[in-house]
Amino acid sequence: MDFSSFLTSLGTSFAIFVILMLLFTWLSRKPGNSVVYYPNLIWRGLDPYENGARTRNPFAWIREAFSSSEKDVITVSGVDTAVYFVFLTTVLGILIFSGLVLLPLLLPVAATGKYVPKTNSTSKGTFNDLDKLSMGHIKPNSPRLWTFVIATYWVSFVTYFLLWKAYKHVSGLRAAALMSPEVRAEQFSVLVRDIPPSPEGQTRKEQVDTYFKKIYPESFYRSMVVTENKQVNEIWVELEGYKKKLARAEAVYALSKKKPMNKTGFLGLIGKKVDTIVYCKDKINELTPKLEAEQKVTLREKQQASALVFFTNRASAAAAAQSLHARMVDTWTVMDAPEPRQIIWTNLPKSFYERQIRQYVVYIIVFLTVVFFMIPIGFISAFTTLENLKKLLPFLKPIINQDVIRTVLEAYLPQIALIVFLALLPKFLLFLSKAEGIPSESHAIRAASGKYFYFIVLNVFLGVTVGGTLFSTLKTIEKDPNKIVPLLGSSLPGNATFFLTYVALLFFVGYGLELSRIVPLIIYHLKRRYLCKTEAELKEAWAPGDLGYATRIPKDMLIITIVLCYSVIAPVIIPFGVIYFGLGWLVLRNQALKVYVPSYESYGRLWPHVHTRILAALILYQLTMVGYFVAKEFRSTPVLIPLPILSFIFAFICSKKFYRFFQSTALEVACRELKETPNMELIFRSFIPPSLTADKSDDDHFEDALSHASRSGSFA
Amino acid sequence: MDFSSFLTSLGTSFAIFVILMLLFTWLSRKPGNSVVYYPNLIWRGLDPYENGARTRNPFAWIREAFSSSEKDVITVSGVDTAVYFVFLTTVLGILIFSGLVLLPLLLPVAATGKYVPKTNSTSKGTFNDLDKLSMGHIKPNSPRLWTFVIATYWVSFVTYFLLWKAYKHVSGLRAAALMSPEVRAEQFSVLVRDIPPSPEGQTRKEQVDTYFKKIYPESFYRSMVVTENKQVNEIWVELEGYKKKLARAEAVYALSKKKPMNKTGFLGLIGKKVDTIVYCKDKINELTPKLEAEQKVTLREKQQASALVFFTNRASAAAAAQSLHARMVDTWTVMDAPEPRQIIWTNLPKSFYERQIRQYVVYIIVFLTVVFFMIPIGFISAFTTLENLKKLLPFLKPIINQDVIRTVLEAYLPQIALIVFLALLPKFLLFLSKAEGIPSESHAIRAASGKYFYFIVLNVFLGVTVGGTLFSTLKTIEKDPNKIVPLLGSSLPGNATFFLTYVALLFFVGYGLELSRIVPLIIYHLKRRYLCKTEAELKEAWAPGDLGYATRIPKDMLIITIVLCYSVIAPVIIPFGVIYFGLGWLVLRNQALKVYVPSYESYGRLWPHVHTRILAALILYQLTMVGYFVAKEFRSTPVLIPLPILSFIFAFICSKKFYRFFQSTALEVACRELKETPNMELIFRSFIPPSLTADKSDDDHFEDALSHASRSGSFA
Repeated sequence: MDFSSFLTSLGTSFAIFVILMLLFTWLSRKPGNSVVYYPNLIWRGLDPYENGARTRNPFAWIREAFSSSEKDVITVSGVDTAVYFVFLTTVLGILIFSGLVLLPLLLPVAATGKYVPKTNSTSKGTFNDLDKLSMGHIKPNSPRLWTFVIATYWVSFVTYFLLWKAYKHVSGLRAAALMSPEVRAEQFSVLVRDIPPSPEGQTRKEQVDTYFKKIYPESFYRSMVVTENKQVNEIWVELEGYKKKLARAEAVYALSKKKPMNKTGFLGLIGKKVDTIVYCKDKINELTPKLEAEQKVTLREKQQASALVFFTNRASAAAAAQSLHARMVDTWTVMDAPEPRQIIWTNLPKSFYERQIRQYVVYIIVFLTVVFFMIPIGFISAFTTLENLKKLLPFLKPIINQDVIRTVLEAYLPQIALIVFLALLPKFLLFLSKAEGIPSESHAIRAASGKYFYFIVLNVFLGVTVGGTLFSTLKTIEKDPNKIVPLLGSSLPGNATFFLTYVALLFFVGYGLELSRIVPLIIYHLKRRYLCKTEAELKEAWAPGDLGYATRIPKDMLIITIVLCYSVIAPVIIPFGVIYFGLGWLVLRNQALKVYVPSYESYGRLWPHVHTRILAALILYQLTMVGYFVAKEFRSTPVLIPLPILSFIFAFICSKKFYRFFQSTALEVACRELKETPNMELIFRSFIPPSLTADKSDDDHFEDALSHASRSGSFA
Repeated sequence: MDFSSFLTSLGTSFAIFVILMLLFTWLSRKPGNSVVYYPNLIWRGLDPYENGARTRNPFAWIREAFSSSEKDVITVSGVDTAVYFVFLTTVLGILIFSGLVLLPLLLPVAATGKYVPKTNSTSKGTFNDLDKLSMGHIKPNSPRLWTFVIATYWVSFVTYFLLWKAYKHVSGLRAAALMSPEVRAEQFSVLVRDIPPSPEGQTRKEQVDTYFKKIYPESFYRSMVVTENKQVNEIWVELEGYKKKLARAEAVYALSKKKPMNKTGFLGLIGKKVDTIVYCKDKINELTPKLEAEQKVTLREKQQASALVFFTNRASAAAAAQSLHARMVDTWTVMDAPEPRQIIWTNLPKSFYERQIRQYVVYIIVFLTVVFFMIPIGFISAFTTLENLKKLLPFLKPIINQDVIRTVLEAYLPQIALIVFLALLPKFLLFLSKAEGIPSESHAIRAASGKYFYFIVLNVFLGVTVGGTLFSTLKTIEKDPNKIVPLLGSSLPGNATFFLTYVALLFFVGYGLELSRIVPLIIYHLKRRYLCKTEAELKEAWAPGDLGYATRIPKDMLIITIVLCYSVIAPVIIPFGVIYFGLGWLVLRNQALKVYVPSYESYGRLWPHVHTRILAALILYQLTMVGYFVAKEFRSTPVLIPLPILSFIFAFICSKKFYRFFQSTALEVACRELKETPNMELIFRSFIPPSLTADKSDDDHFEDALSHASRSGSFA
């Protein structure tokens, strides 16, 4: 890739971004689009145009993003989102502080280096302009390299300092949220798993009640045994489907005054034609008693070896979640209850050893995935140079030889291949994480995000850098496999431009698309016009979802890894990183405040996960630098050895000081007073899955079944 | 070493044992010796001769040992001792079950093997009789080796099965002890460390009280801030010394009607001569108010960042000890309180990071000790063959050449060197363990025992086996360091006889000395005649101490390691192991029931420690077998690979299922009802160190100082 194609790529990306931003300013002012651009506001019952969103100034959203405080973010979108912004600002801080020192320090030193390397440490031949500003331009073992050593240390210490501050800050955010005087149902309950078989003559419910009543005579409120809901869920889904269909049919009838008809067979395509309204009403009348009967059966007979236990105060629940209850550790395992909306019900009854085995099986599958995807990615990065394409697919020659196409292709082809490739994976990893037996959605997402991080760093970053060099130096490696670290170092600069383009593409096009919400907009309008008939259907059509940490964070992590690893070798990458995270902060601040609706709250449990991975990126950077200095034949390379050791010590201290609070609630936090006496009945009810909720509020057969013990009058 | 010297060794050992046992029967029947042979009984206020200990039958003690139940042991000597016997019976079981299969299976196969190896896998030349019964007698890659593969598996599975049963059993013992309706002070309290600096205007005491009162409004009873007791201890020790001196002088005066005199200077050797009784009385009168003043100052002004917190019920204390209290994990760390008698007071105020750093420093020191002691041990085992001695110390030739001396020297010289050498270490390791900042004696002893285990296995076992071969094969290793495992395998049989003698020496002489208590008997009689004048001094002279796990368990572990490793290679070692542990069980049962007085109770926390180390020995055995099969050029050696993996999985499952209950008290255990309402005042007072206890019971200034808050009337 030469310099002009790099500029073309940058220019096109920027042009696309500007167009998308203009589109956003134009589209977001139309009232008809408000549900796409301000769904969070509407969700909370606010009028999006009240606050001057329709003012003339097209950049009002920027001002609003900047003027919003962390507190606003927490109020609107929860602690997790605030933690995500702490992550963005921390990384931004690391890059800005690094850039302020590295750019003025290293660029002059590099530019006056006047060394032209012979081997593949140039950017594939012609693109020398960047190389002049990089460490590749320094003579081997030159005393100038000491400047780069200092730079390496500077970046590390800036990272330690800001990470430490951020961890402390997030710990405070978490504490504040947990101390909040608001009543939150999950703070009053714990999740009990691995309940041993109940003794003769006792139901599960009685067993659980007796057990906890004995241990917590004062603070135990009530328990809810987890049931096997598969059948009742099926009936409930069917019933809800008919209810929606009925509402829809009635809306159509009101609009067109024509009785809507449908066929009863497969997908409404075959079978007898019937009047939809009558048919649905019949079905609903038929299914409602069936559901009620099934609910009763489920509650009484399908109790599983897992339960939710409720306490009358938060401190008791917090202490219970941390304490060993049974002397056999694999029975009566207790943990914090997740929020009702994020419980993965089917995972709750999975037994202790089943979870362990599932976990290891999933780890093996992920390991295989990570390792064997290396091969295709290696091929892609090796083949998607134009020279290779021409050689392999000669019929493309006439197209490629055209100048414009050639430049554009050269700029985007490998990146697009990469992006498409990566889009396939996250769903699979989330599925695997849920298969581990994790009880909450947020935890599963963190687990998936972790897996995706390893995948992305190993395959994209290492795959492209090492893989790119691998094809030319395969024989060197075969001879001496110990040369991996020097190889890592020496193959980096050759791929710097690839990653510059990749980052630029991501931030301009990615954030442009994010801000303008073109895809959701089109989908919403299509749905509104052709599919949605009722209010509920419409609401479903514009439901914005959440920020999607499972893929967002690993992608950000990849950028950090890339920018950190190149920060000293080719410091010109730092401004690109700053733009990426700066623009990201701005665009996502807008999205967090106005668009996305969080689907769960994990009280900042995200952070230790993010923290560890930033440190992993830092250690990779430090090892890369050792490798690169070795490749530069720098004799004093051992002065860099303390850095990775320091990073491990830093990680160890952080985890000792902060981590346990992110696993469980500290009692000094849980014992804060509440605004009001908690309504335990409400807390209890909030955990009943929708398929088991009674429609009529006066109907209390659920009551009986969920709490057999209450019949004997011993539990309130 | 030839066969005759082995028999000599065995014979002498056995003769010594018989003599010692006869001595024991004779001496233990003399009433004057009762405090040496029945101190535990006397301690508990029983008459040792009531139960027929003076009967004619010299083997009555054996009958008594066999007829005693586990419950007796727990009543007399506590759970820890019972756990030690579980350990002995488990190992005995492993060896007996292994022996029952291995001896009839392997000995005929080996004896008919008819292979005479050329290299150093014989017992140094002449001792072929044992070799004929060992695996060394099998041809390389012979199909007969399959029998040995089966034997290897059999020993492993017997170990798994018995260890599993034992862990379950010990877990039950621990639970029973913790559930006991007796009130035990340590079950009502927790130890709090790393208390942050107290806020302006609050004493430590107030700070601790406020903090815990808020979290546990119902169950918090009171707190006791740990103080810096160095000075008050000094005064107290001095005062107690004068009190003892006074009692002694009065006893002397009553006996001899002559005023005892002493000099006041250094060690009573120089200075003015004074009347001891008057002098001591003066000193006591002078020191008593000084102590009281210092007590007040200590309690008010020397409060440290650590405290004991008392709860009104066991479940609250158990839950508190397991819960995170502060959001900064390095502050307000809470753990189970140790028993008052085993608290290491000086370690309590050590801060979080100080403890971490101390721990790692100690680990490094231990590592260096373990590694660098290897060198002297290697030298000892290489030089203490008679041939070497003759070469190196030619002037010994005439002595060595005498037949009797020669045989005895050959039999014992290396072993005695080893035993003396090992006697130096345990104190040092216990000192190191305490320096880690561990808060309780029992924990420090476990830690020291662990260190001693690594030392003993690495140095004695690996040092002697590999070291013995090392001198002849040093060049082989230099050429190829990957050959360590095969070396381990091939050097084992050569040293089998060394270990046989070692084991025999240990069990006959060691247990003979243990049973006869010759050394304590002589010391006691010397002290009684020449030193002790008062009842208290006499009591001190016969105080038996406890079983001494810190050195006893690692030594047993060494025997297990040796016997396991040789069990398949030279199965004739198994009966020796059985005798060692059988005799050990018998002798120690007597000692536990009648002699030793436990100095602490850790409720079976010993077991996970023992369990892990038995497994470590098993894994070492499995690796040795892999090495030995490789040395035997057995092509199907990989069939043994699953064994170490299985051991790791077994260790993992055991730790998952049982371990956490040994770290902390399960709540279902702690919530059992008590026999009586606990007297909280008594519980609280039992933790006051002796130097801070008031002499007069009506004097309650300690009260005030220990519990400032009680002045305001808010805490009872």
